[in-house]
Amino acid sequence: MKKQLGPQRRMYPMPAVLVVSGTGDRASMLTVVWVTLAGSKPPALALVVGRRHHTLELIRECGEFTVNIPSTAIATQVDYCGMVSGRDHDKVAESGLTFAPSNTVGPPVIQECPYNIECRLMQEIELPTGSLMLIGEIVDTQADESVLNADGTAADVALIDPIVYASGNREYWSMGEKIADAYSVGAELKRD
Amino acid sequence: MKKQLGPQRRMYPMPAVLVVSGTGDRASMLTVVWVTLAGSKPPALALVVGRRHHTLELIRECGEFTVNIPSTAIATQVDYCGMVSGRDHDKVAESGLTFAPSNTVGPPVIQECPYNIECRLMQEIELPTGSLMLIGEIVDTQADESVLNADGTAADVALIDPIVYASGNREYWSMGEKIADAYSVGAELKRD
Repeated sequence: MKKQLGPQRRMYPMPAVLVVSGTGDRASMLTVVWVTLAGSKPPALALVVGRRHHTLELIRECGEFTVNIPSTAIATQVDYCGMVSGRDHDKVAESGLTFAPSNTVGPPVIQECPYNIECRLMQEIELPTGSLMLIGEIVDTQADESVLNADGTAADVALIDPIVYASGNREYWSMGEKIADAYSVGAELKRD
Repeated sequence: MKKQLGPQRRMYPMPAVLVVSGTGDRASMLTVVWVTLAGSKPPALALVVGRRHHTLELIRECGEFTVNIPSTAIATQVDYCGMVSGRDHDKVAESGLTFAPSNTVGPPVIQECPYNIECRLMQEIELPTGSLMLIGEIVDTQADESVLNADGTAADVALIDPIVYASGNREYWSMGEKIADAYSVGAELKRD
């Protein structure tokens, strides 16, 4: 039996990433869970961010940002970066997270995040919901050598150990285990 | 040490959902992994979909669709629905998934998905990447009684057992375990 729950704002599962913008001493970071890939040519992602965030100001100033994939080991820091504003708090000092240089954009990446995506702001979009979406072209990525797959060309999700955000529950989770290979297991259902 | 990997189209983790549109015998479904929440007032979500999908045609015809959260038990069916087109295949017959009525929109929900989101198309957005984004207002949700939390007002993510898509690895994963409470654990880092 299904139960009607009304127009809830929920989806399962969701990512939780740290967005960094600004350069030098002004760089700051923000936790974002409304984020998705949004294009292939060029590779791009889309973020939905609150209009009052300090990090949004920094993105508008420099036109660049990084999206950093945290591991479960820094869930406390991820939560903290979503709770306070960079206007009132020195998030770097308080979180203990550290910045490292990006390869191709001005804003730094977060050293403690094993996978880092460097973006150039392509467009701001006013959504019909009143929310603001940022489209970022992915101009480079970097990853800790410790999370690379066997041939060293990409990261392995099991080694990244990313945070899964459980909306509704308001909880951070780990990933569990591999269930099936994609673009593969479904073929058995195909009839010619 | 970080290794530079170039402009990869990757993010960790990602959801995997089934989007249904069309009504009656014409209803069909599509697997989508580029999806995020995109607004609060009204609650809304954003999907990025390929332009040639049969399900996109159906969404344009009826202006409504449902987003269905699958559990790991139907990972094979989820994979299948992303591998074939509803133009050439009867996805309902081949997958064995069944439709159930929505509460407020024409297209049905998928019975075997424990959480179902009913949407009205608000806007199509041409992204600067050349991709197409659909913004859907969440007008209702329903969930299996078996996945509801103790007070029956919302679903519990552990009971939904949603699929986590691991891009790059091209794998479907389960969620693991709760790491921390959000909007909570980070407070310990705050200095006044």
